[in-house]
Amino acid sequence: MTQTSPFQHLEGLLGSDVMLLNACITEAFQNQESMIPEISSYLISAGGKRVRPYLALAIGKMFQSRTPKRFLQAASIEFLHTATLFHDDVVDHSDQRRGKKSAHLVWGNEATILVGDYLFAKAFAMMVQLEDPKILAILAKTAIRIAEGEIVQLNRAHDLTLSHEDYIAMISGKTSILFEAATETAAMLAGQDSEISAHCGQYGLNLGIAFQLADDALDYDSDQRTLGKNIGDDFNEGKISAPALYSYRQGDDKIRAFWQRVMQNKKTDGDFEQALDILQSQGVLPQIQEDALRYADLGIAALDCAPDSPMKEALARCAQFAATRSY
Amino acid sequence: MTQTSPFQHLEGLLGSDVMLLNACITEAFQNQESMIPEISSYLISAGGKRVRPYLALAIGKMFQSRTPKRFLQAASIEFLHTATLFHDDVVDHSDQRRGKKSAHLVWGNEATILVGDYLFAKAFAMMVQLEDPKILAILAKTAIRIAEGEIVQLNRAHDLTLSHEDYIAMISGKTSILFEAATETAAMLAGQDSEISAHCGQYGLNLGIAFQLADDALDYDSDQRTLGKNIGDDFNEGKISAPALYSYRQGDDKIRAFWQRVMQNKKTDGDFEQALDILQSQGVLPQIQEDALRYADLGIAALDCAPDSPMKEALARCAQFAATRSY
Repeated sequence: MTQTSPFQHLEGLLGSDVMLLNACITEAFQNQESMIPEISSYLISAGGKRVRPYLALAIGKMFQSRTPKRFLQAASIEFLHTATLFHDDVVDHSDQRRGKKSAHLVWGNEATILVGDYLFAKAFAMMVQLEDPKILAILAKTAIRIAEGEIVQLNRAHDLTLSHEDYIAMISGKTSILFEAATETAAMLAGQDSEISAHCGQYGLNLGIAFQLADDALDYDSDQRTLGKNIGDDFNEGKISAPALYSYRQGDDKIRAFWQRVMQNKKTDGDFEQALDILQSQGVLPQIQEDALRYADLGIAALDCAPDSPMKEALARCAQFAATRSY
Repeated sequence: MTQTSPFQHLEGLLGSDVMLLNACITEAFQNQESMIPEISSYLISAGGKRVRPYLALAIGKMFQSRTPKRFLQAASIEFLHTATLFHDDVVDHSDQRRGKKSAHLVWGNEATILVGDYLFAKAFAMMVQLEDPKILAILAKTAIRIAEGEIVQLNRAHDLTLSHEDYIAMISGKTSILFEAATETAAMLAGQDSEISAHCGQYGLNLGIAFQLADDALDYDSDQRTLGKNIGDDFNEGKISAPALYSYRQGDDKIRAFWQRVMQNKKTDGDFEQALDILQSQGVLPQIQEDALRYADLGIAALDCAPDSPMKEALARCAQFAATRSY
């Protein structure tokens, strides 16, 4: 358990960049209206793992980028991400986020929505300061696609007939396209051409998909419960995710009827245990992990655009970790 | 009642620009996810008076601007404004907006928040397409100030001790700075230098303040009730606005105690009638109109930066109308 994760290894390689990013983030949410830094810092400075900004900085470092704008770019991605988390908390009525009580339960829906808006506007302003029209165009398009993705998810969150492609598109909108934008624009800022930058974007996109598939599987992984982790959140909220979709697609009429009932929130005691048994009998979780690894491999292959280096190796290991992580 | 308002006169002078703006707006909210155009159009295409985009186009026309980007600029301002309206509806728990049932009552908080996010992102993307770093910097700063203004309003909405300056700052954040950004960046897009553009911004800012002060007064104007209009919304929500603040500032202990009680939502029957009597005895509404006219005059004076023209005259009349309108 004390082993260093690939992500911690990458953080180590970033060296002083981590501190400079922190300074940039902390400065950006200073405001005389004290509610703004108070609520912003609740998610940003504390528990957040900063996966997106670290990956962006790592891509920059892989290309030996020296521009100080890379901290602004990485911080703006984290602000955009945090803005969506605040609004997600209100929309999903979540109880917990990053191991803490959800913001809307601490400050109320009103303040949570408005601080989300503030962080969104601040992210926009930071992106504008990058003074690069091509980067701005990508980030603007990404913000639109994230909002679209959230709306798709709202409308189809209980739809078991979603095709595999539509599900991947949905989790891309929710998670992966911000990874893509983070890594693609980091390469652009590091002076790489549009082809190499697009490859770096593919690295981020596929890592993001692998990450989300693994996340979906972990929520139904009884080994997690043995480790004292909370599982079954998606199930309890009637939210479709990879395990339910894979099982439904392969299941007989009885299994399909089961998923239809529980995803409409008509659950009774013991349903979650039955779900775990069904997944076990179908071998669904290993299938999901296999798919996640396939996406991770696509991401790793995209890194071929860059010369070999310890940072490239660290990025590759992070993609694999995203697919296979057990926490 | 069939008389043409100064605003309708300005719309007439805009000619085909109005149609081209409509086309730009309608195209911008097309989306395969049908909920997006459905909810967006609820506020944008229907009842909205489009004050901000029309003023922006009018400034452009006053300077004989020919750039097609002016429709994108005007539409982006309307999208940003509409995004804030959607979030306001959720935050304020409003029942009505632009004479229609509030969006959150029709589609629920979740969809209203997310479509607001979509419009915000779309506004951002449209601004980026203007490809002008100076304009972008102003618009980004404006988006931040609007979000800050909303948070200030949330925290001080019941604070009767707010100074006049702080109140003007609060309504500026809420209303006027978007008018300022709309008119300033319209002048910039029309090729005017930063000094002239700043004057145009001052026109918009002061018109916005006049508009909001008049709006505050109308909500306590019993003549409105005679005309069949709804009044007393701010009072019923315990939301401070100019009438309550002016009266509190000038009132004796008894009057102050009255406002303190009713603004804490400890209201009883007949309180609103008593409020109207107090305002009448203090002569508060004429004072507010006088102040509104003072701001309108500041706005009109700022138009001195432009040569005389029918459009300049129409803009001046709009500012005066914003302060004196009775509907």
